[in-house]
Amino acid sequence: MLAPPVNRLVTELARLPGIGQRTAQRLAFHLLSTADDEALDLAEAIREVKETVGRCETCFNLAVGPRCRICEDERRDPALICVVEQPSDVIPLERTHEFPGRYHVLGGALSPIDGIDPEDLRIAELVERASANGVREVVVATNSTTTGEATALYIADALRGRAPEVAVTRLASGLPVGADLEYADEVTLGKALRGRREL
Amino acid sequence: MLAPPVNRLVTELARLPGIGQRTAQRLAFHLLSTADDEALDLAEAIREVKETVGRCETCFNLAVGPRCRICEDERRDPALICVVEQPSDVIPLERTHEFPGRYHVLGGALSPIDGIDPEDLRIAELVERASANGVREVVVATNSTTTGEATALYIADALRGRAPEVAVTRLASGLPVGADLEYADEVTLGKALRGRREL
Repeated sequence: MLAPPVNRLVTELARLPGIGQRTAQRLAFHLLSTADDEALDLAEAIREVKETVGRCETCFNLAVGPRCRICEDERRDPALICVVEQPSDVIPLERTHEFPGRYHVLGGALSPIDGIDPEDLRIAELVERASANGVREVVVATNSTTTGEATALYIADALRGRAPEVAVTRLASGLPVGADLEYADEVTLGKALRGRREL
Repeated sequence: MLAPPVNRLVTELARLPGIGQRTAQRLAFHLLSTADDEALDLAEAIREVKETVGRCETCFNLAVGPRCRICEDERRDPALICVVEQPSDVIPLERTHEFPGRYHVLGGALSPIDGIDPEDLRIAELVERASANGVREVVVATNSTTTGEATALYIADALRGRAPEVAVTRLASGLPVGADLEYADEVTLGKALRGRREL
């Protein structure tokens, strides 16, 4: 029913995560009806990002050039490494302005069901980085999910074996700021209780 | 915080309708992490659609070439014209397989508040088309919204003045198939009642 180039665009848009057939069709019609500039700017932005953005050779975060902006920043403490699953996880952490160190992007979390084993993640690179450079602490900031927790435990074990002098820490689990006790789930509340701190 | 090409992609994605800053960021990271092919295919599909798809010179529907596939189809009745607001409205109508005629795409609906006046829509072209070619009926299938209804009334007036022999009809308003009376709003139910038909 649609012209072949329109169909092709709908198909490509529908491959994006969270974009179903209907939304893809709506977006395609928007791109068709919008000024040429706007649509072509998007096409060009996609092309540019794929051509210019790669991975940092140290931390595997996104980088234009061989190293990312954080690894190139001399003011960031190289003895403190925060381990995250994905490049997108760096953003909320940076937004806190509370982390003076550098990052290590694993590229996912361990999930035997999905066939993601330790060698599919950049865990060996992390262990090497942590044992080589006089690193003081590794903060494991994988997600607070089953796979994220499993990955954190695996990393702690791996680091203890190879770099026993490095402290391995984990982000605190507990109540989100502004949360009502009444609506907290028992698991979160239990973790908040076990992790209680002196006032 | 993000590399400039990534920022640019997020900005471009966030210009799409229904795509906020967060979703744009999620999509950008997906495009970054996906195989080069998939992302570049999307860029290419956007470019191709903008380069090859224009407007049908007869009905203003999307067209590859001067006329759309429906206007080029000799089996479609040229004496029966269905008027819609947007090219995307043609799809659900075609899906019914109940309409043997051709279309006329207005490019929107009258909305003085948004500064959309009759001359911003392809109403003059419709009147010309309807008065010239021995057209039998114009089915006004603008949306069942305030602006769509106002546009329908305006078109009916315009056609009555210039092409009095052409029948101007409107899609039926009423209960959607499968709807419960209990949950129908009064306006729809009122229209369904006024439009009742003999069984």
